[in-house]
Amino acid sequence: MDRIRLGMVGGGTDAFIGAVHRIASRIDDRFELVAGALSSTPEKARTSGAALGLAEDRSYGTFEEMAEREAGRDDGIEAVSIVTPNHVHAAAARAFLERGIHVICDKPLTATQEDAEALRHAVADSKAVFVLTHNYTGYPLVRQAREMVAQGDLGEIRVVQAEYPQDWMTDAVEAAGVKQAEWRTDPARSGAGGSIGDIGTHAYNLACFVTGLKGAELAADLHSFGTGRKLDDNAHVMLRFDGGARGMLWCSQVAPGCENALRLRVFGTKGGLEWAQENPNELWFTPHGEATRRITRMGAGASDAANAVSRVPPGHPEGYLEGFANIYGGAADAIRAVQSGADRDAALGLLPGIGAGLDGMAFIGACVRSSQDNTAWVTL
Amino acid sequence: MDRIRLGMVGGGTDAFIGAVHRIASRIDDRFELVAGALSSTPEKARTSGAALGLAEDRSYGTFEEMAEREAGRDDGIEAVSIVTPNHVHAAAARAFLERGIHVICDKPLTATQEDAEALRHAVADSKAVFVLTHNYTGYPLVRQAREMVAQGDLGEIRVVQAEYPQDWMTDAVEAAGVKQAEWRTDPARSGAGGSIGDIGTHAYNLACFVTGLKGAELAADLHSFGTGRKLDDNAHVMLRFDGGARGMLWCSQVAPGCENALRLRVFGTKGGLEWAQENPNELWFTPHGEATRRITRMGAGASDAANAVSRVPPGHPEGYLEGFANIYGGAADAIRAVQSGADRDAALGLLPGIGAGLDGMAFIGACVRSSQDNTAWVTL
Amino acid sequence: MDRIRLGMVGGGTDAFIGAVHRIASRIDDRFELVAGALSSTPEKARTSGAALGLAEDRSYGTFEEMAEREAGRDDGIEAVSIVTPNHVHAAAARAFLERGIHVICDKPLTATQEDAEALRHAVADSKAVFVLTHNYTGYPLVRQAREMVAQGDLGEIRVVQAEYPQDWMTDAVEAAGVKQAEWRTDPARSGAGGSIGDIGTHAYNLACFVTGLKGAELAADLHSFGTGRKLDDNAHVMLRFDGGARGMLWCSQVAPGCENALRLRVFGTKGGLEWAQENPNELWFTPHGEATRRITRMGAGASDAANAVSRVPPGHPEGYLEGFANIYGGAADAIRAVQSGADRDAALGLLPGIGAGLDGMAFIGACVRSSQDNTAWVTL
Amino acid sequence: MDRIRLGMVGGGTDAFIGAVHRIASRIDDRFELVAGALSSTPEKARTSGAALGLAEDRSYGTFEEMAEREAGRDDGIEAVSIVTPNHVHAAAARAFLERGIHVICDKPLTATQEDAEALRHAVADSKAVFVLTHNYTGYPLVRQAREMVAQGDLGEIRVVQAEYPQDWMTDAVEAAGVKQAEWRTDPARSGAGGSIGDIGTHAYNLACFVTGLKGAELAADLHSFGTGRKLDDNAHVMLRFDGGARGMLWCSQVAPGCENALRLRVFGTKGGLEWAQENPNELWFTPHGEATRRITRMGAGASDAANAVSRVPPGHPEGYLEGFANIYGGAADAIRAVQSGADRDAALGLLPGIGAGLDGMAFIGACVRSSQDNTAWVTL
Repeated sequence: MDRIRLGMVGGGTDAFIGAVHRIASRIDDRFELVAGALSSTPEKARTSGAALGLAEDRSYGTFEEMAEREAGRDDGIEAVSIVTPNHVHAAAARAFLERGIHVICDKPLTATQEDAEALRHAVADSKAVFVLTHNYTGYPLVRQAREMVAQGDLGEIRVVQAEYPQDWMTDAVEAAGVKQAEWRTDPARSGAGGSIGDIGTHAYNLACFVTGLKGAELAADLHSFGTGRKLDDNAHVMLRFDGGARGMLWCSQVAPGCENALRLRVFGTKGGLEWAQENPNELWFTPHGEATRRITRMGAGASDAANAVSRVPPGHPEGYLEGFANIYGGAADAIRAVQSGADRDAALGLLPGIGAGLDGMAFIGACVRSSQDNTAWVTL
Repeated sequence: MDRIRLGMVGGGTDAFIGAVHRIASRIDDRFELVAGALSSTPEKARTSGAALGLAEDRSYGTFEEMAEREAGRDDGIEAVSIVTPNHVHAAAARAFLERGIHVICDKPLTATQEDAEALRHAVADSKAVFVLTHNYTGYPLVRQAREMVAQGDLGEIRVVQAEYPQDWMTDAVEAAGVKQAEWRTDPARSGAGGSIGDIGTHAYNLACFVTGLKGAELAADLHSFGTGRKLDDNAHVMLRFDGGARGMLWCSQVAPGCENALRLRVFGTKGGLEWAQENPNELWFTPHGEATRRITRMGAGASDAANAVSRVPPGHPEGYLEGFANIYGGAADAIRAVQSGADRDAALGLLPGIGAGLDGMAFIGACVRSSQDNTAWVTL
Repeated sequence: MDRIRLGMVGGGTDAFIGAVHRIASRIDDRFELVAGALSSTPEKARTSGAALGLAEDRSYGTFEEMAEREAGRDDGIEAVSIVTPNHVHAAAARAFLERGIHVICDKPLTATQEDAEALRHAVADSKAVFVLTHNYTGYPLVRQAREMVAQGDLGEIRVVQAEYPQDWMTDAVEAAGVKQAEWRTDPARSGAGGSIGDIGTHAYNLACFVTGLKGAELAADLHSFGTGRKLDDNAHVMLRFDGGARGMLWCSQVAPGCENALRLRVFGTKGGLEWAQENPNELWFTPHGEATRRITRMGAGASDAANAVSRVPPGHPEGYLEGFANIYGGAADAIRAVQSGADRDAALGLLPGIGAGLDGMAFIGACVRSSQDNTAWVTL
Repeated sequence: MDRIRLGMVGGGTDAFIGAVHRIASRIDDRFELVAGALSSTPEKARTSGAALGLAEDRSYGTFEEMAEREAGRDDGIEAVSIVTPNHVHAAAARAFLERGIHVICDKPLTATQEDAEALRHAVADSKAVFVLTHNYTGYPLVRQAREMVAQGDLGEIRVVQAEYPQDWMTDAVEAAGVKQAEWRTDPARSGAGGSIGDIGTHAYNLACFVTGLKGAELAADLHSFGTGRKLDDNAHVMLRFDGGARGMLWCSQVAPGCENALRLRVFGTKGGLEWAQENPNELWFTPHGEATRRITRMGAGASDAANAVSRVPPGHPEGYLEGFANIYGGAADAIRAVQSGADRDAALGLLPGIGAGLDGMAFIGACVRSSQDNTAWVTL
């Protein structure tokens, strides 16, 4: 097995998403974690590294040190996962891209538009792959939904309804020691978007990924229900897409009963479809004028696009980690292809990259501006 | 059995909603249909009357004639159901209200704001009951949802998500001889709202009924996807309620796979709930921080408000017609109470009346104005 | 309107099923209740009659009196609904059949095999229609399921899984004054079957109705979990059908969380289907090797057999009462046809009659004998 | 990271379950696959080994060779996964157990009762851990269900309904080159049970695991619908448990529309619960007399037993592979504990071991005997 040597920035012991990235990287056995700068607190970085079995000399105190030292090793990391709060993404990604180390970065792209621009340049100047973990695009039936729209099964798209409600910030958890909530409610670390940046971007990315449409303009109403919360914890957005489709996007962190209820519905002249993240192994498709179909992952109605990223038979559910692993699997393919001389952008295939990241930043920025301008339509 | 003598305006043979009103009026055996002006085409009025078993001399060619003649009979109708296209509601209702005949009228209230105002005066000047069939408020678990919000089970309401998508106008059915579609796409008969008037008002009414909130302002994006269609067949609306809650409303007639997918979700500081018309015998309630409950009609978690309008045990589904019958049952109670000298407004209880009708007209009007003004916020 | 004049035996104020029959008889306006012997307690019979608006002289103290007196009137009842506990069915039905009055009788047919035989003869000797309210066969999508099997959509049937669990007798409700439970746990009034007679017969009838198969033999394990309960409150049954299909049937009254969870699944060489009473407006069909279809009542995949007994558009749920009303509607058609000289048996069409009743009695009897004989296979 | 060195017997390229074991072993990073005898065809064993990155000298032609050679290495495997057809389990497991190498073995235990006995002795004589992958017991909410029953949330258990239908053998796939079907329909490789051995044992194991009950006797009707099929492809079983609970078990491989529809329902005097493998992140619990709860993995109603084997937040689904990984995680804990001197049986905790395997063999044997004896009750 020729595993890709992987490093990680962020993702220390108590971070949720770092563990997710690590499992995702292991599922298909394409990566081996060999280095890390796992925390901005050096002591914690060290203990986290030890807990994960990193060699002591490859558990670094800062990403800068890791980038420099690993770039100098013959057996240095080939790729790095960046799983820090948003404000660190840009600087960390640039440090590795400059050294030709491939980057797998969490979303949203950055905390500020300036950082996003700088990162755009860094990607352009590098030969390394840059993948953004809009992980929901890795679900097999999301891939199939995209393929169905692309091949015209829904006809011309008219209406797109995307939503991503959660309930974990219904109470003031950021004041109760929940670290995940602390940085997400802090503009300095999250950027200008609260829920809209954290989960709204996922919903928007999913809508664009599946429909193949590009947002034209939007009108947004962002709001903070949590007392003293500086960033939005609920967002209502109207969308107009190039070509005339219209849509709505709702995200919330204060909706009791909603866990990670990301859901997409797309309607066209010839049919409609629906997919929900919490039960991702089924895709509902209605050819207009016929009975609705329940398409299951690897089942009779599943397509090649879905089956290519599936592991177990129909009725044996795959979940969040497997969907995430499909991003890692795609990244591994892309990295090996680029190492073998393939064209970088072609190698990315369906993977979300800098383009999806910039679209997400444009979306967040437009939502904030529209909301500040009393829900005026803002061009994307 | 002391049945209320009922007349009907509209509702001839091929009308969907007339048959619904008739069944609803029979389910609890509180009404007896004895007169009708069932069609604007006299011949059709006559044959429809015969088919329904009306005495020949009580099957009228016009509602004016029916109002005058029935008012003059000792055994004349006590109440009338008006189930015509929207533009007839006002004149017909006034003809009966003026004569002290109680009115059960289909929604939306009227086709124009002028008519709505005139009808408002007519109701004010009459002693008769006026009930508007926002029938979804008759569902037992909708009643329970309202009660739960009112008693604080959800805490302070923050977010309200209402939607009512259909798919029956995905194709140009109005050009294919579907009468239901013909008048609904004709501004002269429907008024200024298409989908927003036909089904959007139902969703808005349901949201207000359950939450007890009053809309403060809205911003709307109405659109016609059907070629040449003069009225909207899809509407996206942002809502702000008195007291600070925010919401979204989506209605559509071009969403393949959606039949009558009216759905309401309400989220507050202490909990959330969800109800969907297509499976109305269950209500989902999440007390924040606890597992979600599936409350069933007449089941262990059902409340008095729900049980009072239920007929059969839990697990034996009641449906659309029973929900509709609950409006008729309430109307029968109110009519008998008023006949016995009770205060009219108190007698109406939870029933939607002229107030709900005017709210609906204000909602339609605001949606149209906002949409024409590029989705500006408009006060309700 | 030429309504059929209807009488009722049983169904006084506190009886659940009497009210169901009355509503079902009204929904399509084919019947008018004009006489009754509504309770075995004369005083209660009288007050119930008054509450239902019966003329004083047509509210009888006994069914015998009603049969005799009504048969002698020019405007006497044309049909009677028998909604008493099981042990009264036979005598009551015979009293009316002998006088040529059509009978609509609740299930199971009788309390004893002897009574069933006697009733069989009475039906044979009469020209009147006899309908047994295996009401679940009235659901539109049950009719469609039957049609699909009959036309070969499932291929050769192999496996039939039927179940009807409830939870209302989990505790000793018969000792707590619940009248529904009192007579159902009393062999003298219910017969030899407890849950198997009350709800198991429904499941068995449904299985046979949909598949068109006839039971060949069965092996049963009946049990009473309730302390001191004389009749079974839980039954497990294995089934073998003519032609080789096999199946299982489970019914229970002690399964917490189950309300009226009647469910049927049928599997053949070419496909499978599933229907559940608690959400009766959808039918799941899987053509083997294709994605599962969700067929909805009146929706795109609904058949003529289903649409013929539907009233409102897809997405507006019909329920238990409408399904029950379809039995009444069919009975009205049959009665009018027979009155016009049609062949009685042909006129019954899909309606459950004496044959279904005898099959049910054979089923109950075989279950009891098999269970007493240590679950031996018993021929049906 | 101190990974357990793992070998694998069976699981070559085209085997479904081998890949599952490998992914499951990697998810929590507790194992490293270093050796294998991946196929009974030496050439295939070699190429499979190479594809999986095994060192050439540790890719063996037979399990005997692997056992001997690995036992002689300082860095030899500590544990082995046996993922062959059933008839190989016993001999392979014994070869490793005798050498003190821990065994993780697929189910059912063996193909014959003799083999099962031999294996029982081998386990007794060894100090090594023996784990049987009844993987469904690894699902978090299955663990919670077990805990809830154990702590009395359901009261005294009365009724247990278990089922596991599939549809993949509806057609004669064993004659069409589907290897999974070939050996499963071959008594020499599968043993006396077809569907009952392959999936019925899973359902039975799940029922016993969750309820904590021990089967007392059963009555079975096994059948082969597939032409010429020697082993059952459908089985109906009645169950009686120690203490008086009763149940039913149905498994099938010829039920179109069923993928891996393992489902368990348990009912007691105080409540009922339901869990379905295809959507394993929710558990339905009804305290008798209250509304049904939807408990979600890691959600508000999830217990410590469930959370201990969960990785990602509520609403992010975990699936089949994560449930399987929980067996591997438990095995890793047990192996390390035993290596540190802990008592072997205590170290196994909730893991299915030789006892569960013998129970499964007794279940298969009893089903076959009962079915051959015309569904007579057979003691377990």
